[in-house]
This record gives sequence, structure tokens and C-alpha cells, in this order.
Amino acid sequence: MANEKKLVEAITSMETDFAQWYTDVVKKAELIDYSNVKGCMVIKPAGYAIWELIQRQLDDRFKATGVENVYMPMFIPESLLQKEKDHVEGFAPEVAWVTHGGLNPLQERMCVRPTSETLFCDFYKTDIQSYRDLPKVYNQWCSVVRWEKETRPFLRSREFLWQEGHTAHATAEDAEVRTEQMLNVYADFCEEVLAIPVIKGRKTDKEKFAGAEATYTIEALMHDGKALQSGTSHNFGDGFAKAFGIQFTDKDNTLKYVHQTSWGMSTRIIGAIIMVHGDDSGLVLPPKVAPTQVMIVPIQQKKEGVLDKAYELKAALSNFRVKVDDSDKSPGWKFSEAEMRGIPVRVEIGPKDIEANKCVLVRRDTREKIEVSLDALEMEVTKLLDTIQSEMLERARAHVKEHTYTALNKDEFVKTFAEKTGFVKAMWCGERACEEQIKEDMGVTSRCMPFEQECLSDTCVYCNKPAKKMVYWGRAY
Amino acid sequence: MANEKKLVEAITSMETDFAQWYTDVVKKAELIDYSNVKGCMVIKPAGYAIWELIQRQLDDRFKATGVENVYMPMFIPESLLQKEKDHVEGFAPEVAWVTHGGLNPLQERMCVRPTSETLFCDFYKTDIQSYRDLPKVYNQWCSVVRWEKETRPFLRSREFLWQEGHTAHATAEDAEVRTEQMLNVYADFCEEVLAIPVIKGRKTDKEKFAGAEATYTIEALMHDGKALQSGTSHNFGDGFAKAFGIQFTDKDNTLKYVHQTSWGMSTRIIGAIIMVHGDDSGLVLPPKVAPTQVMIVPIQQKKEGVLDKAYELKAALSNFRVKVDDSDKSPGWKFSEAEMRGIPVRVEIGPKDIEANKCVLVRRDTREKIEVSLDALEMEVTKLLDTIQSEMLERARAHVKEHTYTALNKDEFVKTFAEKTGFVKAMWCGERACEEQIKEDMGVTSRCMPFEQECLSDTCVYCNKPAKKMVYWGRAY
Repeated sequence: MANEKKLVEAITSMETDFAQWYTDVVKKAELIDYSNVKGCMVIKPAGYAIWELIQRQLDDRFKATGVENVYMPMFIPESLLQKEKDHVEGFAPEVAWVTHGGLNPLQERMCVRPTSETLFCDFYKTDIQSYRDLPKVYNQWCSVVRWEKETRPFLRSREFLWQEGHTAHATAEDAEVRTEQMLNVYADFCEEVLAIPVIKGRKTDKEKFAGAEATYTIEALMHDGKALQSGTSHNFGDGFAKAFGIQFTDKDNTLKYVHQTSWGMSTRIIGAIIMVHGDDSGLVLPPKVAPTQVMIVPIQQKKEGVLDKAYELKAALSNFRVKVDDSDKSPGWKFSEAEMRGIPVRVEIGPKDIEANKCVLVRRDTREKIEVSLDALEMEVTKLLDTIQSEMLERARAHVKEHTYTALNKDEFVKTFAEKTGFVKAMWCGERACEEQIKEDMGVTSRCMPFEQECLSDTCVYCNKPAKKMVYWGRAY
Repeated sequence: MANEKKLVEAITSMETDFAQWYTDVVKKAELIDYSNVKGCMVIKPAGYAIWELIQRQLDDRFKATGVENVYMPMFIPESLLQKEKDHVEGFAPEVAWVTHGGLNPLQERMCVRPTSETLFCDFYKTDIQSYRDLPKVYNQWCSVVRWEKETRPFLRSREFLWQEGHTAHATAEDAEVRTEQMLNVYADFCEEVLAIPVIKGRKTDKEKFAGAEATYTIEALMHDGKALQSGTSHNFGDGFAKAFGIQFTDKDNTLKYVHQTSWGMSTRIIGAIIMVHGDDSGLVLPPKVAPTQVMIVPIQQKKEGVLDKAYELKAALSNFRVKVDDSDKSPGWKFSEAEMRGIPVRVEIGPKDIEANKCVLVRRDTREKIEVSLDALEMEVTKLLDTIQSEMLERARAHVKEHTYTALNKDEFVKTFAEKTGFVKAMWCGERACEEQIKEDMGVTSRCMPFEQECLSDTCVYCNKPAKKMVYWGRAY
């Protein structure tokens, strides 16, 4: 019992200190470790296995829309980074510079990619000649580097893993369709696979990507009421094409600039999984991204037949990602450990269960215990995993609903953010200065102008000028 | 017809200039493109899709042996790289150095990983405490950077993709078992998936990895008779453990150093696929790593029912990676293009075929044409892909056999290398000076001391001293 206590005590409660709770879970569930490379993390097997499941399922969804994977160099020569003005201003202050190759200084220094628009543009410039070469719908899975000052596991680190899609199209319409299509892929993926509901919308000019005409975003709400930008899709129009000279001969035999998009999702999303679903016992993983979906814990495993039965159940559940915890730890310790790691279903099987041809299923999300006949085990586990997946989404949806408020004037706006945590929907005049004032006064940022607009009132919630858009406001990671 | 001619003319023949043939195939089959980042390549969709098939199948084989994937930082602080003497000497001259983060110089410069032994050691130092923590069998898929002066697509570039496994064990025996096990995984993968036969053996001390006690290698023979080192597995003993202080408390309660291994395979192996199987019409891909296994080419596709039938066949072949070439190019052009890209089976279907309820299958490797009933199509394609896969291996085996020679004395050794291309088996004294002399005199290097030793004679083929080992010698990429 001393051990079990120790394991639970290792996690600070959410109520006490959410940030510490997060760090504890990340560490105790063995998702990552800090490294001696400042600001960079080691993604451990339990963390990387989640990323692999994300990768495979997201990549399948990409490919279903015609995406092809490629790989670009990790270095960007300084002159290339500088070709698009807004882009270089956005990224130059936070890149890592390579100045020497082997023993010799480089003629031109290069940065490690913070994102690869410039490399794709440089490639498309020669690869695209005719309308027949369009569209190009390329993506790469890779790591990128941004020299952040403050870092937090998954949420912000100097190096992180992601995918970045970069497309080129013949018309502005095609580019817009792809930008929205990929945002929908992200949103559906978050809801259907990660059980995370998201708000889809457009970023204000202040918050958009460096060099983009329009940035679309999905915003998720964490358990503490803070927002997390979880995926973005950018429409570049022909801005990069003009900066890089990416032209094609169209069907009408005239030379035109391509229209481009880019879109990305990163290991940051693992932070969202933790902060949307986790609880004071640790991680709670949606079955579709749980590296282990079912953990079988034998009770009194030294008694004859118990371990054999446990392996038999494992074989019966071979359609799932299933393990037997046959270590020499106590059952209580094993329970706590499976909970800490967020394993969706625990199967308890002991001598009395075997005698009665049954076992106990324990849900990680609700802790509900269900006795099932061993004959119906596979069917019951299939149903239960489906139920857990969909109920996790429902609970997360309810949380967003409960923590989304409306403010019609400045007093309400200030009061809501002072007293509540969550999203606040409010009208906005559309002016950058007003948005900046809100950030300065309250530490609150515009999360997005949602696609589903409502007209709450005619005037800006903060400055009283005529309202242009309804905006989701929030405190963000 | 002008187009078809152009496409074929685009490839230099192997006989004329093998190096140029290789470059032409890489480019015309659209596997890679040169980038404006000197010495780095862009891996295009057709090339990256091969890598994805390699990754998935190799990774499955890894996981079947208990490997877990992780991700380490891409940067190595200079002080960390310097901890193991031989290792730093081997790699420091060819790394890229990051000296600035954003606008500020770094306190300590860092290199981009050329390989990650030092990072894994630094991690294991704290992660491993007890015998219960062993073994650690970790792997990562990532890119690495080595500042090469001369580069060639896939074979040698400043950045390349690979996997690097890094393991830690309680005993020297366990480490040796894992080193050999992973070499066997590589060898089996090459033969069973890539249809490339390999020689398994141990590197001489001169050729072993910087910091390793022993390096095992698989060596493949290219069409031009040059060897390609295709995968390596290193046993480090406790050398790194002592340099980094990686100790654990064993069952007997004493503190011991771990024993480590590492092993890697890279995108270089795609170069081997090209140079083992390719011909003067382009790439020839083994079915198991062909992104498109079957290309359906409709003949007289504008005639009613032809395209519909082609799509119907595609649906019937949905167990395979299958495409219909419904572009507006001529059939002849489509044939050449499918050949260039190495697609294992082409299906030709035209109005007369449809009338007779048949189609024509064309093998890429032998160009053999086979008429099959449409009713038996799926079965015939299944059989044919199996046949192609196994016959490609058999032909490659025959090529190695035909190009492996034996030399019993210096005259034979020199004469064989002067007149033939391929491996030469010969006895060696075991002395580094002799090996270096051979390289200097003849440009020939020891490929490996094969596990299957033969006693060809009692004396070294070059210096006549008593022989210690039989060695495979060759010219290498």
C-alpha cells in the first residue's frame, strides 16, 4: 500500500496547481523527459507511441484527399529565408543558425527550418511549369526548430515534431477550397480520433501566420479554461508566388502566378489530449490513440492457472492493443500505473473470476466496473472502447459548452474574464488597435472569428465602435 | 512516337556510363531533385513513397523483436559530443555547427546530430538505475547531417533519413546477441522485401564505427560490380557506458556498467534498389516496395466502355497498390513512363480485350507478356507479383555469384581487380598496415570478414604473412 500511495502522491491535484499537475502527468506517465539540450525534450516510448498513432491516422486522412508525402532539406540559406518580407520578419528572430560545416565557416549561413514555405517555394519555382503540373499537394513529416525562451513539454519547445502541408494551385478558388478542406480534416480528426471538440474559425490579421493572406484555426478548450490553438491552415494567395517567381503557363497560354496554402499540426496536440481528458490520477487516453487499449491485470497471479488465463484473454483480445501486466508488483500498484498511463480499459482476472467464467472490466474515464462473461469478452470490450471514445467526446463538448460565455459590453467582458475561465464570445470592431488594447489590459487574445457567426449586438464589446465580427476570446497556451 | 523516343533517350545506357545512368534514373523516375541547399536533396513523392514502404515494413520487424520508438533532440552540445574519444574524432570533422539562437550567440555551440550515441547515453545515464530497467531497446526515425564534400543522390548527401537503434543491456552477452539479431533483421529485410542478397560479416578495425568494439555489416553488390554497405550493427561493449557513467545496480546489489549497441539503415538503401535491379529503361521495383504495384493502361480509351472497364479492373485489384493511367498521353508513352518508374506489372486493356474477356499483363522485370482471363485477374496478379518478387531475388543472387571471385595470391588478386568487377574473396593477415597498403595501391577496401569463413590458403593474399581471416574485398560506394 505504501507504493500505491507514493504513486498517487506523485501527481499534484489539478485544483491545487494545474501547471504543476500537467508537468507531473507528463513526467509520471513517462511521455517525455527533459534533456540536457536546453529547451528540447526526449519523447519517451509512451509519448512517441501516441504520436505514431496520430501520424498514421492523420496521414491516412491526408492521403484520402490526394496528399503526397515528400522530404525537403532541414536547412534554409539566409538569402532564401529573406525572400518574403513578412515571413522573414516573423521567423528570423527565433531561428537557430548554422555557421560552420565541419572545420570551415560557411559562405552563407543557414537556419534550421522553423517552417518550410521558403524551401517548397524554391522547389515549386522549377518543378511547376504548366497547368498540367497543378495542383501540387505535398506534405512532410519532420522536426522544426524555433528558439523559444520559455518552454513547456509538448506545448512549446525549441524543437518539435509536426507535419507541414504545402500546396500550389492554378486559381485563388482552388487554394481557398484546399485551405478550408485541410482545416476540416484537422477538426474531424480532433473530434473523431482525439475526442477533442474544436471551434473552427479565422484568425484576425494580428494573429495570422507571417506571410499569409488568411489563417484558419481550430481552437480547443483545456480543462483549466485556457485555449490551445491545435492546428492551422493558411491561404497565401499569390504572395509567396510573386516573391519567389512561381509561374505556370495556363490553358490559355498566358503566364500566371500559382496560389498557395500551407497547414500544420504538431506534437503540441499531445498537450491538448492531456489537458482535455486527464484527471488527478493521470492521463486519460481516447481509445483510438491509446498505445495500450486494454491492460489485463491478473489477481493472485501466483495461483495456478491465473497467468495462463490472463494470456488466454490477451489472445482473445488480439484485435486490440492489449498487454498483460505480469510483473511482480501488487495488483493495486498495477491499477494505479495503468490509470496513470491512461489505458482506457483494465481487465481484472483472479481465481474466483475464473471459477465463475467471468472478469471485471474497469473504465479509466469513469472508473465504472462491469462484470462480463469470458465468453462475451471480445464483444464487450469492442462495445466498451466505442462507448468510451464517444462519451469522452461528449464530456469534452459539455465542458466547452459550460465554459463558453457571452459578453455584450465592456463591463460584462471584464467581469466574465475576472470570474470565469473559458471562451467569451463578443462582438469586435475589426480594428487591430482595439484588439491590442484588450490584450494589454486583460491578457486576453482573440482566438478566432468563428465560421459560425452570431450577431450578439451592433457594437464592439470593448470600444463601442460598430461591430464587424463575432470573436471567440480567451487566455491561451 | 517522338515523345516515346525522347523519354527513352533521356537515360544514358548502363554500359556507356553507369554513374550517369544512375543519375538519369534517379531524376527521370522523379525520385529526387537537387535543391538549392548545397549537398542536400529533395525527396519527391515517388522516392518518398518507397521510403515509407521501407519504414513501415522495417519498423514492423523491429517491433516484433521488442523495439520501442522514441525521439531525441537533433542538437548535440559540443561538450557532450566530446565525451567518447574515438567517437568525437570520427565525427567532429564532418558536423554542422549551430552557433546562434535567434539574435544571440550560444554559450556553447551545438552540432546537428550526425548520429545520436551521445544523446542516448546522456539519457540512459539517468533513465537506467536498476537491472529492472534493462534492457532498453530504443530506436528513432529521423534525419542526420554529415558535412560531406562529394555528394550523390541517396548514396551520400549532407542530410539523409535513417533509423538509429540504441540499446543498453545488463551483460556483454546480451549486447552481442542484440547486435547480431539486428544485423539479421536487416539481412532478412533486404532479401525478403528488397530482393537484395547480402553478405553478412564483421568490419575490420580500420573500417569499424568510431567508438565501436565490433561493427557488423551487410554488403550488397551493385550491377556495376561495386559494393554498397547497406546496414550496420555495432557492439560498443561498455566503452560508452564508462565514458558517460551509465551504471545500474544488478541483482547481486553491485554497481555495473551497461553494454550497448547501435544499428542503422538509411535512405542509402534506395540507391541499392536502383543499382541492383534497374535497367536501361529505368527503375525496376520489387513489388513489396513499389508504391504502385500495378498500372492499368487503357488502349483506345476514348472508345466507349474502355475507361469504365479499366476502373472496374482497378476495383477488382483493390488489394494491391493499383492505378489507372487515364491521362491524355499515348499508350506508348504511358508504357515507357510505367517502365521508367519501375512499376512491377502493367495491365493493358483495349476494346478487343474486353470483347474477349481478357487483358494482357506485362512484367516490368522480364517484359514478358501474359494473356489472362478477366475472371482470373486478381489471382493471376497475386501470383505474378509473388513470382516477380522471388525471381528478382534469384537474379540478384545469380549476379552476386557470377561476380564473386577468389584470389589465392597477390598476382591473382591484382589481376582479378584489373579485369573483373565484383567481390574478391581472399585471405588476410589481420594487419591494418597491409589493409591500408591494399587501399593505397589498388583503391580496394575490405568489405567484411564474412560470418561464413572459408580457408582458401594459409597466407595473406597481399603480404604473405600467416592468414587470419577470409575477407570480401571490393570497390565500394
